[in-house]
Formats: sequence, structure tokens, C-alpha cells
Amino acid sequence: MQVLVQKYGGSSVADTQKIKAVARRIISAKNSGYHVVAVVSAQGDTTDELVAKAREISSSPSKREMDMLLSTGEQISIALLAMAIAEEGYPVISLTGPQGGICTDALHTRAKILRVDPVRVRKELSDGRIVIVAGFQGINDMGDITTLGRGGSDTTAVALAAALDAKACEIYTDVDGVYTADPRLVSSARKLDEISHGEMLELASLGAAILQPRAVELAAAWGVTIHVRSSFSDSLGTMVIGGDLMEKQRVVSGVTRDLNVVKVMLVDVPDRPGVAHSIFSTLAQKGINVDMIVQTTKQGPVTDLLFSIGQDDYPATKRLIEELAKDLGITQVLFSERLAKVSIVGAGMMSNPGVAATMFGILAEHGINIEVISTSEIKVSCLIEASKVDEAVKAIHDGFRLGEEITA
Amino acid sequence: MQVLVQKYGGSSVADTQKIKAVARRIISAKNSGYHVVAVVSAQGDTTDELVAKAREISSSPSKREMDMLLSTGEQISIALLAMAIAEEGYPVISLTGPQGGICTDALHTRAKILRVDPVRVRKELSDGRIVIVAGFQGINDMGDITTLGRGGSDTTAVALAAALDAKACEIYTDVDGVYTADPRLVSSARKLDEISHGEMLELASLGAAILQPRAVELAAAWGVTIHVRSSFSDSLGTMVIGGDLMEKQRVVSGVTRDLNVVKVMLVDVPDRPGVAHSIFSTLAQKGINVDMIVQTTKQGPVTDLLFSIGQDDYPATKRLIEELAKDLGITQVLFSERLAKVSIVGAGMMSNPGVAATMFGILAEHGINIEVISTSEIKVSCLIEASKVDEAVKAIHDGFRLGEEITA
Repeated sequence: MQVLVQKYGGSSVADTQKIKAVARRIISAKNSGYHVVAVVSAQGDTTDELVAKAREISSSPSKREMDMLLSTGEQISIALLAMAIAEEGYPVISLTGPQGGICTDALHTRAKILRVDPVRVRKELSDGRIVIVAGFQGINDMGDITTLGRGGSDTTAVALAAALDAKACEIYTDVDGVYTADPRLVSSARKLDEISHGEMLELASLGAAILQPRAVELAAAWGVTIHVRSSFSDSLGTMVIGGDLMEKQRVVSGVTRDLNVVKVMLVDVPDRPGVAHSIFSTLAQKGINVDMIVQTTKQGPVTDLLFSIGQDDYPATKRLIEELAKDLGITQVLFSERLAKVSIVGAGMMSNPGVAATMFGILAEHGINIEVISTSEIKVSCLIEASKVDEAVKAIHDGFRLGEEITA
Repeated sequence: MQVLVQKYGGSSVADTQKIKAVARRIISAKNSGYHVVAVVSAQGDTTDELVAKAREISSSPSKREMDMLLSTGEQISIALLAMAIAEEGYPVISLTGPQGGICTDALHTRAKILRVDPVRVRKELSDGRIVIVAGFQGINDMGDITTLGRGGSDTTAVALAAALDAKACEIYTDVDGVYTADPRLVSSARKLDEISHGEMLELASLGAAILQPRAVELAAAWGVTIHVRSSFSDSLGTMVIGGDLMEKQRVVSGVTRDLNVVKVMLVDVPDRPGVAHSIFSTLAQKGINVDMIVQTTKQGPVTDLLFSIGQDDYPATKRLIEELAKDLGITQVLFSERLAKVSIVGAGMMSNPGVAATMFGILAEHGINIEVISTSEIKVSCLIEASKVDEAVKAIHDGFRLGEEITA
């Protein structure tokens, strides 16, 4: 019998009625002939409530203790969901992340999965049980509980799907699939039936908050097919699949925006070897993710260095950079929160020159100034004024005719 | 350095301020030169809230899943308490019951501790950390989370104290020690400085809801000294110590009442071998604790059989007994909830004949009728009308002059 892994987010199990609906959905998959493993997040606001409790006690609680605290959220969900399935008369067992064999490194609150040891999961499946596994959490070599950071349940689900050689990993969300643009912004946005791991990875990283980028990365590495679908309907969603073949004809698959951007600009950076390294290694050591990096040449022995970070990392970055600036003799540091990122993603870009130029042209037509450009093989991103980002998304979506079905 | 185990109940960690107060108390013990291990229960009403969540989903949830659910309560407490201690600048680590090495049998919701394997606790102590352990929970041989049942945190604390060869196990409660009677009932009740394990065991079993009987039993078996004291003051409480020597001069140590009593009476039970066995073994198999048992001889081939149980077990007992009665040809079964138990406890009773008679005399003087009597070497219990039990406690306390200090 084939294994099917399903993942339900916090909003899908927010209350008793929703838990019962998820239970029925899991049972229906079981009745279709699958061994079902369901990965579940903490109920609705549980995590926020626990964080608030911790904040009352300490402004900077130990990360290990935060993991000890937050991991209770999923543990509550799995127990309740298992009870709901048992109530329908189906054999079921809940397993914590550690019991599910999710072995991680020791980087508390941001742990990475090192390996999955699904002995217990396999045993329970072969005994005919539905298995409910707590998402977001694992165990390190010390025997301590770790958590995987934001969106970690997606990663748990994909890791289990890979370890169990599952047919697919179904990720249930509050949207019914991956769209060419955010349907709330662009009314002509179209749901994609298929998208490649690579494209999804770019979309995920670029702010389409549907799948956790790490989960997509893992799915790509292990060849796991992800099915993104709605927890509120039975219609098929979007299949995120291996290879980049099937939709090569589509040059641009989607357009996306990211409002979570802070631009950092270092003016007159001494132009000598090792300066950039000392800046970015310091940020990396503190776990700060730097996104776009642009260096512009000036006349004389100085350059301007510009990069972007997420808003969460703004306070820490400000502190670090202002210290570094003194040490390195940088005269001016500018921060800007009034920017946003608009990006296009598409595996077809690689073989279609001029896509970036078309995008710049569309923005220019709408009088939108581009502050920073960054490109990869399958995406083009521009930092533009935040107030114009929604207009930019619509214009690009129309300009590339993403709303139209491709009949090639 | 000697180990000191402390246990804090759910009301002691009910909110942020109380958690901080407990943190300071633990730090003060650490500063007195002890290796401190603190065992903590779930916050205030957490357990009740989790039970309510489960009940919304299922009227009879799986016991394994209940343990999965309920064990999150203590896990939240230990994380928050560890944060509060760290906030004061002391090295500290929280451990779940499984991490603390509390190994139990597989009887979910009522598991018994089989052994304590405190490798991790010892390591953390020797690294200079205060160790916070989740009470009430353990792990079985399957790797599943178990809970120890009502008052299980006391048992966890005593078991750890025994395994770590601790100087003492301090149990913090909302009363400041063990009294000769409930001070809310008897104004002249006196706090005892010392009491033996045996006496405490009888008091605990008889409804003085200060210590969990199983914890006292364990303390007696392992020679652990328990210090029952208040979490709201620094004054010494009552030491529960090994041996029965030190207070032999006190014939009666305390008087206690228990309202949690249901009397079951089987009328005209066939007087043939094996009948009592089949009744009580059936109840035992269902985990129903039978307290007092009295059989009265009648004329002819029948007897009356009478026993008492706790109110929690009433519905299950009623169902079982009514079935059994049919099978065994018992004509009439009577249940009564209008009774209560009043008991005296004292190690000195063994060598002082007539103590029981004095008690019966006091009750008679007050016109209180005795329905059932049960005695052990160090206690005498009587089932009497529930409405008269408070009067009985006062009368007995006065009659034996328990409020007066013994100067012998």
C-alpha cells in the first residue's frame, strides 16, 4: 500500500469543528487505499499565546526553553486530531516530532532536519493505523526538543514523505493552489495546475506565503511531489513536481511581491579586499539572511554597498552594521523601509532572453522607478517604491498575459 | 554538594508573578549550597482546559492520547519556570518527565513509576545547573508519554529524591504543614512538626489532601524525608520521616474526614466460596479501588456484603455490580452517597488498647450513629452520616485533646 503524507496548518485545526473536518478528510484518504501520515501544526493562535506567556517572563528567553514551550502547541493538536479520528472508529496514533523520528541539529528555534528515522511511523502504518505526526518539531542528539522555525510543519511533511517514499505530500492551506499572482491583487490571476520545484522555490522565497522555501528545497532534493490544495474544498490544487520540462513553453509562471524588505545602504565603503566579507560574515554569524546585494563602483578608493534584509532582522542588523561602520571607517549608513520587491519567476526564462528587459519596460511604462535589480536563472526581482508594488504586480501580470491559458 | 528536590503544585505556578516567586525560592535554595531539582505541575487550570478540549471531541478519548494531550501542561510550566530562573542570571535547564528518566509501565493515565534513570539530571546538576523536571509524566518502554494520575507530581518528586539520594523532598502546597485536623473545621487544630511515613500514609489515604498516598508510600519504601511546607511563607512545615519512634508518646496524631465515599450494599449474597472473590476481582480488573469491606453473617445460606468506593468510580461500579448481581442471584443492591468517613490516625495506637473504643464513645456522646467500622494498626475509620462528619471531627479532636502540645 502506498503512503500519502498530508499536512494541515494551524488554521485547519483551529477549533473542534475544523479538527473533525480534517479527521474526515484523513479518513477519506485512508478509505481510498493509502497508508496516511498527517502532519499537523499548532491550533490557530496557540503559538502566539505561548510566545506571549514567555515574553511576560523574559524579553529574551533561552531558545532551548522556547522550543520546550512552543512544541506543546503541536502536541495538543495531534492528540485532539487522533481523538477525532478514533471517534469515527478508525485506528490511529499520534506521535510527537521526536517519536516520529525527526532528528535535527541543535540550532534551537531554527533547527535543520539532519535525518528522518521513521521506524515507529512504519510500524504503526503496517499495524493499520493512521499516523498523526506533530509538525515543526524534532529532537537533537542530546535528546532535547527542537523546533524548525517558521513554516517548519511543511518541512516535516516533505521530510517524512521522502523518508517514507510517499506517493505525494499534500499541503492543505487556505488557498486552493499556486496562482500566477496573488488573486487578491490581480483579479485575472490564474491557478497553475503544475509548477516545477525550482519555480516554486523562487516563488516561495519571494513572498508567496504558500509553501515554506526549505520544504520546497527538500522536495526538490528528494524528488517529492507536493500537492498544494485547499482544506476547504475537494478540488485539485497545484502539483509541484520535479524537473523543469513540462511547462517550458510558459516563459513566466508567476509574479509576486514581498513587502518584508528593508534596504541597507553603506555609503563610501573603503574599496579594499575583505571588507564585504567582514560585513556579510558578521551578519551570517548572527543568522541574518541577506537577500539582494548590489555593489556600485564609484570614482576613487570607495564604493557604495547595498543589500536588503527582512524586517524581523532590522534591529539586529542596524546594531551590527552601525558598529561595523565605525570599525571600517564607513561614513554613512542609510536604512529604508519604504521599498518592496516585485519579482517574476519562470523556468522558461533561461532560454528566452529579453524577459528581464520586458519587465523593466512594463515598470517604466507605469512610471515606476527601479532602485535595485537582482536576477537568477529563473527569476527577476526589482526593489521599487512600496506604495507602487500592487500596481506593478498587476501591470506585469497583464503585460506577460499570465491570466491567459497556454494552449501550446 | 547535596541534592534537594522541591515540588511546586499547579497553584504555585498559576501566573507570571507566581512563577517568578517560585523562581526566587528555588534560587534561594541553590544559594544555600544545594544542587536543586524542582518538580512542577501544570499551571492552575491548564489540565482542566485540556480535558475540556478533549471532551468536545470525544466522550471517551483514548487514554494514550489523553496522556499525549495532558503532558503538555507541565511542559509549558517547566519552560516558563526555567525562563524565569534564567532571567535572574542562574544556569538552569528544563526536562520533561521522559528526559528526566521517569520510566513507567504502560497503564496510560494511571501509570506507575518502574524506575528512575536520572543520567541527564545528574549531568546537568554537575554542570552547575538548576534542573526543572515536569511532574506527573513519564515514558513507557514503547517510547510513549504516560501520566501518573492525580497528584502524580508528588510521586515524581519523591521518586527523583530517592534516585538522587536527596537530602529531602520539599513539597510546597497552599497549607503550611500537616495538622491534627483540618484547621478550616477545627480552630484548635495544631500543626505537627513531625509525622511518620506510616501515619502520613493513613492520613493521605483518608482524605487529607496534602500529599498523594503513592508518593508517601514511595517515600516510606525508599526512606525519603518529605518536608510539607507552604509556598507562601518561609516557615518550616511538617517533616514526614522514616520510623515510628519519635512520636510514640502521641497516641493519636490526627483526625480526618473523607466526603468522597459511596457505600455499596449487596443484600442476601449466596454464602458460598468464590462469590466475594468474583465480585472484588471484577472491580479490581477495572481499576476500581475498594476501601472498606464488611461482611455480616445472617441466618441461612446468605450474607450481606458491604463496601465503599470513591465517587469517581460510582458509575462504573454500579454498572458492574448490577450485572454481577444478576449472574450471582443477588436480590438487592443498595447504593448510598449520604455517608462520609471520619478517621483517627496514630502510630501510638498499636501499643494503646482502647483507642478505638474511646472514639466510638465520643461519637455516641454526640448521638452520631456508626454505619461501618474499619481499623488498621494505626488508624480507625467510621462511616457516619455525611451531615454529621464535621461535628464528629471537632468532637474527636477535642476528645483526644489533639490541640494540646505534648510536653512528654
